[in-house]
Amino acid sequence: MKKTEEGIINFINKNFRKFRKIKLGIGDDCAIIGNYAITKDIYIEGTHFNLNIPPEGIGWRTFAGALSDIAAIGGEPLYFLLGIGLPQNFDDKFFKSLMRGMMNLSNIFKVQIIGGDTVKSEKVVLSYTVFGKIKKPILRNGARSGDFIYITGDLGLSRIGYDLNIFNEKFLYPLPKIREVKILTKKYKINSMIDISDGLVIDSERLSFASSVRLDIYSDKIPFNKKAVEHCKKNNLNFVDFCINSGEEYELLFTSPEKINLKFVKIIGEVKEGKGVYLDGKRITHKGFKHFNED
Amino acid sequence: MKKTEEGIINFINKNFRKFRKIKLGIGDDCAIIGNYAITKDIYIEGTHFNLNIPPEGIGWRTFAGALSDIAAIGGEPLYFLLGIGLPQNFDDKFFKSLMRGMMNLSNIFKVQIIGGDTVKSEKVVLSYTVFGKIKKPILRNGARSGDFIYITGDLGLSRIGYDLNIFNEKFLYPLPKIREVKILTKKYKINSMIDISDGLVIDSERLSFASSVRLDIYSDKIPFNKKAVEHCKKNNLNFVDFCINSGEEYELLFTSPEKINLKFVKIIGEVKEGKGVYLDGKRITHKGFKHFNED
Repeated sequence: MKKTEEGIINFINKNFRKFRKIKLGIGDDCAIIGNYAITKDIYIEGTHFNLNIPPEGIGWRTFAGALSDIAAIGGEPLYFLLGIGLPQNFDDKFFKSLMRGMMNLSNIFKVQIIGGDTVKSEKVVLSYTVFGKIKKPILRNGARSGDFIYITGDLGLSRIGYDLNIFNEKFLYPLPKIREVKILTKKYKINSMIDISDGLVIDSERLSFASSVRLDIYSDKIPFNKKAVEHCKKNNLNFVDFCINSGEEYELLFTSPEKINLKFVKIIGEVKEGKGVYLDGKRITHKGFKHFNED
Repeated sequence: MKKTEEGIINFINKNFRKFRKIKLGIGDDCAIIGNYAITKDIYIEGTHFNLNIPPEGIGWRTFAGALSDIAAIGGEPLYFLLGIGLPQNFDDKFFKSLMRGMMNLSNIFKVQIIGGDTVKSEKVVLSYTVFGKIKKPILRNGARSGDFIYITGDLGLSRIGYDLNIFNEKFLYPLPKIREVKILTKKYKINSMIDISDGLVIDSERLSFASSVRLDIYSDKIPFNKKAVEHCKKNNLNFVDFCINSGEEYELLFTSPEKINLKFVKIIGEVKEGKGVYLDGKRITHKGFKHFNED
């Protein structure tokens, strides 16, 4: 068995029996039951965050990651369950600040806490189950040749938080694109969508594979974050490479057959027949999906 | 802020805003959305289990605990999401055996896996979100003076697993009382219910407090497990005390105004006006709810 996320998911898919029809099962970011999209995300100290990050940011950005899964499938988050693991004699100030991060974000999008579980744990563990209402799920596999490729926001700032421990607003307090999804799905036909959680390269490749299409992206059309570009220039880094491999941006990558004229989206390329992701005509690929013995 | 489960739940209840009506929120074992009862349970290596327990048993009994929450509210589990945290380079045999425990239990009750998350973690983390269909939730607060108090199964065997590391069937493979609940709720009026997850003393006290009633329980009516009684006699332990403080039994404690004649239930007392739990006429109380700096 491959010790990767994919390996584990494959094992589960093969070995757990199917008792009833489900629209979307394990391996997708969300499951669908009735009119609800449901996602479960776990974040663990040492793997996903360290305690040098301001706790309010830890609470916010982990919760944002879970909310973003609902947005990325075209849903609107309504409720959530929270599982918390905390060390014994955890610091009161830390806890309240952690919660404040979640609360502030839940207030913005009016996502209601409905339950959860609280346990003792050496490392801080945060587990979210989020429920969103959904009409028609927008999947990764719907991109069609002829679609335009779009992206919301810009890329690069989140990685500055990661690599440099410069905890900017975007890194600490990313906004899941819930409002944007509402507008987009109301006005336009969206064929496929994914959120940029592991970087444009990896996530566009996922979309390309799922849809069996080729994605042609042009670097002069990608919205790079100015601060990220500055940082790269100062440090003699390739800013394109830096920004297209910036994860946890929680921007949306999506395709549509329509020309979309909205302030918050930018066209970055087009969908063609074939497979794989091409940047300025050259095939690009991720440097390996995250393995359990990596990162 | 009190560093107890209750303290954390109180903080969350006070500080998270309410955006929409919900039937049951945080603090209850389940939340209710539409016709679904939903529960979230986290289990962490070192807190809830150690790796000396056969992994199949770890998978089974943790999952059983989550399923039991649905049963205890009168629901029937249908779907679940699984969150797993595993150390890097986890043992393949361990993982498959852990999964087999969950699978075997999911096969018995036809509970369908629909999604989840897989992360790297120093300690093994298991997080379940279970969805059950429910018509009328049976809560802890419905016990009325004049009700009879009932219990399913017998008590004590699970604690032998805990205290002595003798991993008997009941400890490793407890069966949540899903079928029993179906029969009970179909045939009888059940006023209140709770599962015995922390021991008869603590859980009966929870029911008594929630319902604002007095519970009179008689030790000569409690079904004590024979092996547990034997063990206590051999070791000069008080078997009543041992068994009524045996947790994770996942038996049901419930009250009904009706005389119930079913093989799998036993009457152990009656509900009166007042408050607290009385054993043979003497008030008993738990030795402290679990604190974060305990156990």
